[in-house]
Amino acid sequence: MFKQVTIMGPGLLGASLVLAIKEKGLADSIVIWARSEQTAEKARKKLPGDRVETDPAKSVVGSDMVIICTPVETMSSIFSTIVDHLAKGCLVTDVGSVKGVVCKKAKILFKSPGVSFIGSHPMAGSEKAGMENARVQLFKDRPTIITPESDCEQKHLEKLKEFWQSLGMVVHQLSSEEHDQVVASLSHLPHLISSALSFTISEQAKLASELSGQGLRDTIRISGGDPSLWAGIFSENKAQVLSSLKDFEDSIQMIKNLISEDDREGLEEFLKKGTLLQKSLS
Amino acid sequence: MFKQVTIMGPGLLGASLVLAIKEKGLADSIVIWARSEQTAEKARKKLPGDRVETDPAKSVVGSDMVIICTPVETMSSIFSTIVDHLAKGCLVTDVGSVKGVVCKKAKILFKSPGVSFIGSHPMAGSEKAGMENARVQLFKDRPTIITPESDCEQKHLEKLKEFWQSLGMVVHQLSSEEHDQVVASLSHLPHLISSALSFTISEQAKLASELSGQGLRDTIRISGGDPSLWAGIFSENKAQVLSSLKDFEDSIQMIKNLISEDDREGLEEFLKKGTLLQKSLS
Repeated sequence: MFKQVTIMGPGLLGASLVLAIKEKGLADSIVIWARSEQTAEKARKKLPGDRVETDPAKSVVGSDMVIICTPVETMSSIFSTIVDHLAKGCLVTDVGSVKGVVCKKAKILFKSPGVSFIGSHPMAGSEKAGMENARVQLFKDRPTIITPESDCEQKHLEKLKEFWQSLGMVVHQLSSEEHDQVVASLSHLPHLISSALSFTISEQAKLASELSGQGLRDTIRISGGDPSLWAGIFSENKAQVLSSLKDFEDSIQMIKNLISEDDREGLEEFLKKGTLLQKSLS
Repeated sequence: MFKQVTIMGPGLLGASLVLAIKEKGLADSIVIWARSEQTAEKARKKLPGDRVETDPAKSVVGSDMVIICTPVETMSSIFSTIVDHLAKGCLVTDVGSVKGVVCKKAKILFKSPGVSFIGSHPMAGSEKAGMENARVQLFKDRPTIITPESDCEQKHLEKLKEFWQSLGMVVHQLSSEEHDQVVASLSHLPHLISSALSFTISEQAKLASELSGQGLRDTIRISGGDPSLWAGIFSENKAQVLSSLKDFEDSIQMIKNLISEDDREGLEEFLKKGTLLQKSLS
């Protein structure tokens, strides 16, 4: 499918991509870029890449596909360092959880003939981050959202879809604004709430480990995610996250009133609505 | 261990108790009480009880152990119907999620010589309720909280501990007030939050089923629990639930401010505290 793919940032997603691209034979050769020599060394030992670079410019030279897998807030600086070194016809994408700001910056920067940036958000993470948790099946049967600009090159768009589909993903297409709104409520809000719950009971850690059941454990599972990564996501998608949070606070106010006023029927109705949503997702 | 055990209410917990008591041989005979003839018929067909009654008084006659497995709000009326029919020396317990009100009522009602009520809360539920989801291993390695009054009969207390331990449970002892406070934050609050999140995104059910990942699914899993049961729990433990919710709202306010004010360092600290709690429970 590609002659040479560059994976920038061999964390959980980047490293899993290396494994999956290798296994499916989607590229003749894979170049990995890592920021530090230490990570580069680890990637050389653990991942089936053909070459590992610490110089971003060097890592993209000659590639017809570049996938940026670094935290969202680092992307614009990555863009600047690689833009002048991309091969003609190169397709650049990313795996970030926020798209609006990134896609705007890409639109300004990537102007070379034939070079396209199309945002991707493969929704396949885990609270277990890092190269050591990478696995080839991470993407299988999971959704991925791609956010092409209206004037994007059709050939590249098709290629990108085909790429994610080759990894077993179901591809959805949204504008970057729609994407940020949707993931604010379906991904960022749940994370924020899960983290706030963990924060709330963090003083009771001992009791919780003795007395809590699977319910609490499931509800707070995602709060175990990388704090720096998630702080970046919340900052980058600030307006949409705060707007989703407002909706959630309205729901909290509603259930609080129902409990306070002993409105048993209203309380059951409220809970039932949640039950229906839960069942529709299980 | 017992001559005759009565299980009142063959829902998920009650029916699982019947299976577990039978398997471990903890009683010579098991009597099941069901409110409706329909449920009684189902219990006769599906559960290894020796007798199924729809008259509560009849169901407890001759038993040395009675376990009430009905919703918390029905307990006082159950108490009244059985109190005059309990055998001398009978140990009565329950499996309810709220203890304060129930234990107070029991203290007033159960005054016959040798009869004890000691509250139990085996923390082993599931969002999949009902007899049909019962399983013998439901209690294994899970915690149970018992809430004896200070003047309770030592012999009965030991017997109750031994009973839950025989099912593989780890027994903790708290006052009924402590219990209600602890479960408000470790069980009722997570359920409330999970339900409020499901309620918030219930308008986006279709998008959610297409685009959400395991994170959202885990965070809302418990919101699938029986609405009537949980409305009862929130009502019965109202003061403690509202107090825990207040703590959670404070946390939400805090993270909202951190995001609004672009306090990146504070935000990471906040998230990190939650991460530590999550890791300590996993």
